[in-house]
Amino acid sequence: MIPRGFRFAAANAGVKSPQTTRLDMGLIVCDMPAEAVAVFTQNYVKAAPVQIGMQIMQAQGKIRAVMVNSGNANACTGAAGKNDARCLMQKVAETLGISTEEVFPMSTGVIGVPLPVERMLTKVPELAGKLGDDPQGFVASIMTTDTYAKIATRHAGPARVIGFAKGAGMIDPNMATMLAVVLTDACLSRAELDGAVRDALAKTFNAITVDGDTSTNDTLLVLTSSQVQAEKAVVITAIQEVMQELAIKVVSDGEGATKLINIAVTGASSDADARLVARAVANSLLVKTAFFGQDPNWGRIMCAIGNSGVAVDQETISIQVAGMPFAVDGREAPGFDEEKGHSVLEPHEIAIDINLGLGSGNFRVWTTDMSYKYVEINAAYRT
Amino acid sequence: MIPRGFRFAAANAGVKSPQTTRLDMGLIVCDMPAEAVAVFTQNYVKAAPVQIGMQIMQAQGKIRAVMVNSGNANACTGAAGKNDARCLMQKVAETLGISTEEVFPMSTGVIGVPLPVERMLTKVPELAGKLGDDPQGFVASIMTTDTYAKIATRHAGPARVIGFAKGAGMIDPNMATMLAVVLTDACLSRAELDGAVRDALAKTFNAITVDGDTSTNDTLLVLTSSQVQAEKAVVITAIQEVMQELAIKVVSDGEGATKLINIAVTGASSDADARLVARAVANSLLVKTAFFGQDPNWGRIMCAIGNSGVAVDQETISIQVAGMPFAVDGREAPGFDEEKGHSVLEPHEIAIDINLGLGSGNFRVWTTDMSYKYVEINAAYRT
Repeated sequence: MIPRGFRFAAANAGVKSPQTTRLDMGLIVCDMPAEAVAVFTQNYVKAAPVQIGMQIMQAQGKIRAVMVNSGNANACTGAAGKNDARCLMQKVAETLGISTEEVFPMSTGVIGVPLPVERMLTKVPELAGKLGDDPQGFVASIMTTDTYAKIATRHAGPARVIGFAKGAGMIDPNMATMLAVVLTDACLSRAELDGAVRDALAKTFNAITVDGDTSTNDTLLVLTSSQVQAEKAVVITAIQEVMQELAIKVVSDGEGATKLINIAVTGASSDADARLVARAVANSLLVKTAFFGQDPNWGRIMCAIGNSGVAVDQETISIQVAGMPFAVDGREAPGFDEEKGHSVLEPHEIAIDINLGLGSGNFRVWTTDMSYKYVEINAAYRT
Repeated sequence: MIPRGFRFAAANAGVKSPQTTRLDMGLIVCDMPAEAVAVFTQNYVKAAPVQIGMQIMQAQGKIRAVMVNSGNANACTGAAGKNDARCLMQKVAETLGISTEEVFPMSTGVIGVPLPVERMLTKVPELAGKLGDDPQGFVASIMTTDTYAKIATRHAGPARVIGFAKGAGMIDPNMATMLAVVLTDACLSRAELDGAVRDALAKTFNAITVDGDTSTNDTLLVLTSSQVQAEKAVVITAIQEVMQELAIKVVSDGEGATKLINIAVTGASSDADARLVARAVANSLLVKTAFFGQDPNWGRIMCAIGNSGVAVDQETISIQVAGMPFAVDGREAPGFDEEKGHSVLEPHEIAIDINLGLGSGNFRVWTTDMSYKYVEINAAYRT
């Protein structure tokens, strides 16, 4: 199921502290120069590997290796941070016999702490020696607060597509917080690959949110080894499906999440308005805590809609939850029953349909509820 | 200490349900027509009493009575909701022998549930019969999840100023979620009163945030009975100090808050930019949960700054917490000690100073941390 030309390895380097025993360095090698497309965080504060990755992509180079670590974001680390990342890239390049600019760096973890680059450098030969077909170690090495590995695969005729992602907090559109790598072996030009990724972004990684925070490190990297001829439309669909599946897996595993909530806004004056409304509802703490409590408190959804900045008409808004009308024309739906409303909120996956009654603009976003666990995870992340 | 001309009453009407025994209806009467200034929520979804209050203020009428209830927001209740509010205003007007348009309505509580207007109407004569000098019952009647009554008083020479407010969730600038009433007996024209309130808004009620949600019902009403000649500058300062004290009390009592956090942003290209940055940091869940955990995780502050939409330069940002340098030029401050950073986060009140190093724009905002208790309160609010 692995696209041809790619090999994987992972190691423990004690990135977060010398005591950590989990896999925290990962390597992907492509046996031939891969066409690459990358999308980066829109946060103005960008981690060192993001800054370097952007330079690599601007130079339109091909990629031979992806060097990833968890446990340290290498963000807010100044010139020393960039130097540390370059040292690692050089070591990988020397070890593999490729050029430094062919090594794409990604980091995730705590912000503002210098990378323990000496410990990490010693692990590069071990990584190179371990390269093989099994990506499980690699996926484990990029996890932070994720509770499970996020992998998606598709066949595209004779070609293959596989994707890996890590979440799990700081998830917000443009980009969702995450590292994601999608690999294929299908012959696609850089322009075709780029088109496929950009087309799918708005409805995948840019349509999920956990807490409204966009990280300093978000990166999506898509590579093809170009080893297999396959029908391009099929390949593009497969890549987009992998992106979609990864995005939903990332949000499903949002920190402390007990619900996966799909918010569809229709009837907006424009798609942009629909997006603002969907995001406002998805990021409202009062909505998210109500869903955690399975409280059919649709008034909080109305309140969040009114806070989106979009000039809505409260008299034309309708809300359905799991197909049950909660509000019609901005008021409680006729025959609304609170007990029944509570019961439709019991399943893990919940669909909210909001019709603004103004036009034909629409947007869909995935989010989670907000639980005690989110606070616990994030109050105890570091100290 | 009560400004001359004002009397207060409160009653239990079982607004939320017939079983509730707490005070949930309140009345303020002014013995003479009071000059009035009001500020309303900027949420596009506005409660019935907000819509009515806006009409009253547009007509530039004077106010003789303020009719308040908690337990039900009378929001998203359509034409029936407006009719219910008007019925109550009429009953108050008849009982007191004043006109309906002199009765100013305010409601707070759950959204989307019809007001139990019959039960409430029967309580109006009781309220009128109980009117007296003690405002404690009135303040209690407007509380929802507040843990204490919010009252602030000032003398202004011979004149007096008193203010009441309720919080405690859905606190965000423009307006902070709340009902607030400020009363004075000083002779001020409507224009003078209006100027005093508008001047102070940006630095008081519009500079606090708990969860980034602005409610459907936020209202600040300022009344003067114009009974006392006093130096106007002194009166204006007293009114603004009362607004400031109420605003800080509201945010201090933010749902589940364990910390009061004062975020001052300086060195921005403009005050507007400073405000965006201050708000982004104040509303970042990752920052708020870190403060709850007393985790000196300044990288999350950097991340939130980068997410504000303001084009910051990460290499010129400095962060101090409680006077201790956490970050300088976008990196860990020289000699930063994590244990010491943890200890400066122990007090209840914490000052964060962020210098963007770009210009002279500045803004200050008050917020809270984010605790388990916030989730508990809001997951269990209704059902």
